Amino acid sequence: MNLTGEDMEALATRQRANLINSITGFKPALLLGTVSAEGQTNLAMFNNVFHIGASPPLLGMIVRPSPEGTERHSLDNVLETTHYTLNHVSEAMLPAAHQTSARYPREQSEFAGCGLSEMYLNGFPAPFVGEAQVHMGLRLVEHRELSVNRTHMIIGALELLNCPDAILRDDGSLDLAAAGSLATCGLDSYHPVGAGQRYAYAKANRAPQKLDA
Amino acid sequence: MNLTGEDMEALATRQRANLINSITGFKPALLLGTVSAEGQTNLAMFNNVFHIGASPPLLGMIVRPSPEGTERHSLDNVLETTHYTLNHVSEAMLPAAHQTSARYPREQSEFAGCGLSEMYLNGFPAPFVGEAQVHMGLRLVEHRELSVNRTHMIIGALELLNCPDAILRDDGSLDLAAAGSLATCGLDSYHPVGAGQRYAYAKANRAPQKLDA
Repeated sequence: MNLTGEDMEALATRQRANLINSITGFKPALLLGTVSAEGQTNLAMFNNVFHIGASPPLLGMIVRPSPEGTERHSLDNVLETTHYTLNHVSEAMLPAAHQTSARYPREQSEFAGCGLSEMYLNGFPAPFVGEAQVHMGLRLVEHRELSVNRTHMIIGALELLNCPDAILRDDGSLDLAAAGSLATCGLDSYHPVGAGQRYAYAKANRAPQKLDA
Repeated sequence: MNLTGEDMEALATRQRANLINSITGFKPALLLGTVSAEGQTNLAMFNNVFHIGASPPLLGMIVRPSPEGTERHSLDNVLETTHYTLNHVSEAMLPAAHQTSARYPREQSEFAGCGLSEMYLNGFPAPFVGEAQVHMGLRLVEHRELSVNRTHMIIGALELLNCPDAILRDDGSLDLAAAGSLATCGLDSYHPVGAGQRYAYAKANRAPQKLDA
């Protein structure tokens, strides 16, 4: 298949959305936990997260708010209360995690609606997902609307990380295959991930070297 | 393990980099292909790509240029020639794909240095990777330096998509597990991905429904 920009524009809306959301490759399966100023919690499937920097630890995400729906509610909550959580989805949490992408009314929490547990850690103000193995707590540090198509970029400082000791390697990296974290593709597909192959820091003057996983 | 922001700042630089690059979850394994105004090609491992929108098709990426090295060369080329490619890494392309992350001199192409083939499609000016199954050609539409830590955000319009017919489903989505696309974790780990579970578009008033994969 060989498609130009014009060919892609000519696709039906839903087909184009499925295609363009698939092409970037595998993404993390995450649940975005927030709370409104009034204390109403919200939970939404989310995979559009990226690394900004390690020192200080900063993560970015792109939120595409429809007029109503979970991304809109999540964005409003992040801007109101400036704290949010990201929680890794594992197989036991499906299909409840996917169900959070439905349009629940603003006054109904997806935690209760989908059967996932609110958990609170270290006094952090936003809710974590009790069933998840890896939990991150973030504080909003930058928000801008992208002029190119009115999506929102949120940058957050990582203020809390909670995960099982067993997945932390001596070098600081996490074994997410051992944690059972899933990958996603497109808008509706969740994939198990096998054990990884690791390679040493690459140098131009030597051949690639495998590391123990 | 339960780490606060202060705990993370107290980690050794390399440990913190490994940790913060792992926590966001699985990422796509991609090769970024570019060419300078003088015609010098460059290829770099890349996983920091995200979805901006489907209509028009726009992808974002974060580039963290060190003073020299592949991300610096890639960024300079993108800004000079405004076209670049993203190519999915599959298992047969390892370890050559990882080796592109080494610091080759600017006048040496990672294609030749690492044993991957330059491929040109539809007259697109930047080089694709011949060994990849899924190829994207993009044109720069927005560039900004993020004030928060001087990384660069690049937004590109998708102008070319090339992949095997067999991985395209009727609904427009791609079966990337069938394409053999890998997921990455952290800075050095590459993972095979199993067949996915798909779920129907979620609605608040009905239970989750599995789809055929």
